[in-house]
Amino acid sequence: MTRSLGTADFTAPIEDRWFSDYVAGVQYEYGHLDVREEEILRFAEQFDPQPIHTDPDFALHGPFGGLIGSGWHSAGLAMRLLADHYLSKVASLASPGVDELRWKVPLRPGDRVRLRATVLEARPSRSKPDRGMVVTQVELLNQDDGAPISFRAMNLLAVRPDRRSPSGSA
Amino acid sequence: MTRSLGTADFTAPIEDRWFSDYVAGVQYEYGHLDVREEEILRFAEQFDPQPIHTDPDFALHGPFGGLIGSGWHSAGLAMRLLADHYLSKVASLASPGVDELRWKVPLRPGDRVRLRATVLEARPSRSKPDRGMVVTQVELLNQDDGAPISFRAMNLLAVRPDRRSPSGSA
Repeated sequence: MTRSLGTADFTAPIEDRWFSDYVAGVQYEYGHLDVREEEILRFAEQFDPQPIHTDPDFALHGPFGGLIGSGWHSAGLAMRLLADHYLSKVASLASPGVDELRWKVPLRPGDRVRLRATVLEARPSRSKPDRGMVVTQVELLNQDDGAPISFRAMNLLAVRPDRRSPSGSA
Repeated sequence: MTRSLGTADFTAPIEDRWFSDYVAGVQYEYGHLDVREEEILRFAEQFDPQPIHTDPDFALHGPFGGLIGSGWHSAGLAMRLLADHYLSKVASLASPGVDELRWKVPLRPGDRVRLRATVLEARPSRSKPDRGMVVTQVELLNQDDGAPISFRAMNLLAVRPDRRSPSGSA
């Protein structure tokens, strides 16, 4: 089981967490996940069958000196920690996308990774008063604090029902 | 088996394709992949366990009126088609990341998706004459030409060995 690793966590539990619970500037950490070679191979065989991700012998003589995980596998690991600990289970409406996705260091078998999520911005919707957009800097960090993946995520979150303004003018 | 769907394909086979084979402005299409509910559930249980992706009954009453795939599952499907048809199996060195990743329409069970890859830019490296950066607009399109995912990918590709300049001045 993964858990909060930071000095503070949300006061609102993930089953009752709403737009107003995301405050710009606050940073959270959750983990760890241990990355096994067989998981790297299984993901890559299905979604990214390049030999650097599927063939340990080939990869040993490649530019990274060994097998590395698909960059999209790193995305999946970051998403898993976001879904388990950060993203509200009741208020998450949709995500339009992410920006500046970067793969800075390879994901390797044996890595122990954690999530760092920093709220960059939380702005109420102008047109729809029942929701707001939360922008989060997401980093998956390994045991050496290198980032197999980082990106800036956009998430539409619902406002807590009892705080909604029927006219949108509040 | 997926295949080229466009009017033209690369003349260089994927096992002997190099930086110079990627030419700005050229567009390719490959497919199709058929998306099954059980694949959506399997991906989501592992990487994105939000009920809109894991619970068909819950999803039926949600904002999309039914189960939708994780956005990262769409990324995996696009990557699979890129790896099978577009990205050189011998010259692909690394990817620094992607920009402007967008989820415009949901991925749904029963969707038939294809890849559209458009070469936006291919520029030789100034510091390392043995490689160049290829920038590709990637779109995964469904049967209605909606895009479950799109992004701008950066890929470092090696120059064909017999065209490399030892001094970097060519």
